[in-house]
Amino acid sequence: MTVFNRPEFLSRIVRVKARMADAGIDMLVVADPANINYLTGYDGWSFYVHQYAVLGLDFDEPLWIGRAMDSPGALLTAFLKPENVVPYPETYVDSTLFHPAQFLAQRISDSGHGKARIGVDLDAFYFTAKDYIELGKALPGASLVDAEGLVNWVRLVKSDAEVALMRGAAAIVGKAMEVGMAAVRPGVRECDAVAEITAAQFHGTTEFWGDYPAALAQVPSGRKSAAPHMTWSGDTYQNDTVAYLELGGCHHRYHAALARTLYLGNPPSELTYIAKVVAEGLDTALDAARAGITCHDVEAAWRRVIRRAGYDKASRIGYSIGLNYPPDWGERTASLREDDQTVLAPNMCFHMILGMWMDDWGYELSETFRVSKNGAPEVLTSFPRDLVVKR
Amino acid sequence: MTVFNRPEFLSRIVRVKARMADAGIDMLVVADPANINYLTGYDGWSFYVHQYAVLGLDFDEPLWIGRAMDSPGALLTAFLKPENVVPYPETYVDSTLFHPAQFLAQRISDSGHGKARIGVDLDAFYFTAKDYIELGKALPGASLVDAEGLVNWVRLVKSDAEVALMRGAAAIVGKAMEVGMAAVRPGVRECDAVAEITAAQFHGTTEFWGDYPAALAQVPSGRKSAAPHMTWSGDTYQNDTVAYLELGGCHHRYHAALARTLYLGNPPSELTYIAKVVAEGLDTALDAARAGITCHDVEAAWRRVIRRAGYDKASRIGYSIGLNYPPDWGERTASLREDDQTVLAPNMCFHMILGMWMDDWGYELSETFRVSKNGAPEVLTSFPRDLVVKR
Repeated sequence: MTVFNRPEFLSRIVRVKARMADAGIDMLVVADPANINYLTGYDGWSFYVHQYAVLGLDFDEPLWIGRAMDSPGALLTAFLKPENVVPYPETYVDSTLFHPAQFLAQRISDSGHGKARIGVDLDAFYFTAKDYIELGKALPGASLVDAEGLVNWVRLVKSDAEVALMRGAAAIVGKAMEVGMAAVRPGVRECDAVAEITAAQFHGTTEFWGDYPAALAQVPSGRKSAAPHMTWSGDTYQNDTVAYLELGGCHHRYHAALARTLYLGNPPSELTYIAKVVAEGLDTALDAARAGITCHDVEAAWRRVIRRAGYDKASRIGYSIGLNYPPDWGERTASLREDDQTVLAPNMCFHMILGMWMDDWGYELSETFRVSKNGAPEVLTSFPRDLVVKR
Repeated sequence: MTVFNRPEFLSRIVRVKARMADAGIDMLVVADPANINYLTGYDGWSFYVHQYAVLGLDFDEPLWIGRAMDSPGALLTAFLKPENVVPYPETYVDSTLFHPAQFLAQRISDSGHGKARIGVDLDAFYFTAKDYIELGKALPGASLVDAEGLVNWVRLVKSDAEVALMRGAAAIVGKAMEVGMAAVRPGVRECDAVAEITAAQFHGTTEFWGDYPAALAQVPSGRKSAAPHMTWSGDTYQNDTVAYLELGGCHHRYHAALARTLYLGNPPSELTYIAKVVAEGLDTALDAARAGITCHDVEAAWRRVIRRAGYDKASRIGYSIGLNYPPDWGERTASLREDDQTVLAPNMCFHMILGMWMDDWGYELSETFRVSKNGAPEVLTSFPRDLVVKR
């Protein structure tokens, strides 16, 4: 039942082991559900309890370690041989007496690696301070080293099979945007617009079923559009306000994201001006995003356009996107921003998101793209880039 | 724009401070978005970057510390005075050079608490190992102590205003269950059923707008129903299979959850027998859930019923529920299980979920209830408890 074939997983493991060897790490523990999925194929909404994938340099396959109740799901979804699915008992769940990291430590110790250099994702959500402390306590002979983002950096360059899933996700998000643009009207409650959008995200298309995006729809309007990341409420859309839709499409946990802005009425001239400038900036920055160029340079191309128009933007204009789980579809690796010297390579995928935050409104325009072998990137998402005006 | 009035927040702060004083903690740092919301009112999908609420014993209001981009949202949603909304610069986001915990440490130090006993939620997702390490490094004179669940345990007993929101959430989830039971039919893709269910969850009712539940719909069927926490796919429902729906309703971040099972065809006798036994167990356990009784005793009442019928269940039968964010609507405090000696008190709210996991199928039945002052609990959710049979 895995989405990818065994050779795909083995090639991931080879690349992860190469980085482990470079970093002098014998044993890698990941807790980020996207990293667990990447190494094992495991997929379930069980990441609210502790779970891990463990890979030793001398392992042919990783171990999945999770709650006993979730091991049937691991047997169904992971590519692993059954003996590599290792359940911990229910007594470790939300307990003040036992911690799953103690169980994890015991397994590492049993495998003869109690004195290993163990790499852990120090800043991954889902790898808590307690995971770190308990693992250290239970393996006093081991050394825990920061392997922050080790698997994430391998994830940065996608296989063709992964890109195929992202194309499916892009098809889904385009459809959801269409539904959203029709749903947002004066007098409609935000929650009702989101209900229609989310239904479109989950229905997907005939070819690509809709999985849940790692972040739900963001559809703020009016003053709330100046505050990124506000979720919806029962407020109704009002005449003469701006609203933006930032949506994800997801297929088999792979994402494409898309943002567009609309105005309910006759748009003020500053908004149409910004829309024009940002669209020009997007064109320029997308065209710059070629293999061999740095993330820094892509952002610089954008910056030149908006500086010339009299604007500035403090935050990054994009980030790597792909396989993920809540709360974020971003991969926490390369960002399109000043001083990020990551060199673009074919099959890296980014969400380029141009959010302009004014004092009391905001404007967003974005595309998800794949870096091509030669020339300009493949823009995966597809939706007209103009400000949508609903009078 | 806060959902609760200022006295509600001040009463929460008083109760949290009392626990801090008991634990010898001068300063509390929380990173769990539900705890941040509980103490400040802040609500946004920004928990994919580091953010904190900080409460000193000598503070009249907490500080909100988050990404600069999210401070407009904090000003809109938190009850705090504006100077208590403290943004950290964009340079701290996904950076290998700077960590938000360093910024947090500086603020604690600036407030004259650089040598405080600082309580942190060691096992909260969103408080990473790196948060812990960087905070410790930057405040060498402070001591970091485990304040695991301190705020969560305060959250366990709801105010009447919180219960009112949960009643709204319960109304929503009942409606979503109705939609789900109609949507699941042989030949329908799981994703299409979930699309309709989720739309119902987000539409909510005329009175109660639908917020996003901390966990999305679980709607497995057939063999997948034996694996809890599997999410949906493009698979179609098949004749002669069991399916269960485990759904949340959410209003202003407060949850009610509800699970029901259906059979597509003529149910096998073991299923109808289990449905009968579990319904009896639910009745018995609900009736036992009275103020003054322990969680252990509630579970024991259930256990007696199913033991008599020849069954056993290893996992807990419920947990505290209320305010939450992904990935979990459970509060990580009291569980209805053996040896949990928490004494039920009025306005504690639980999701009692009876999941029976067979080798190749599963059965679920649940209710969300509030412990009453006297007598049997108030069952917030409302939906017929029988196995739904669709022939």
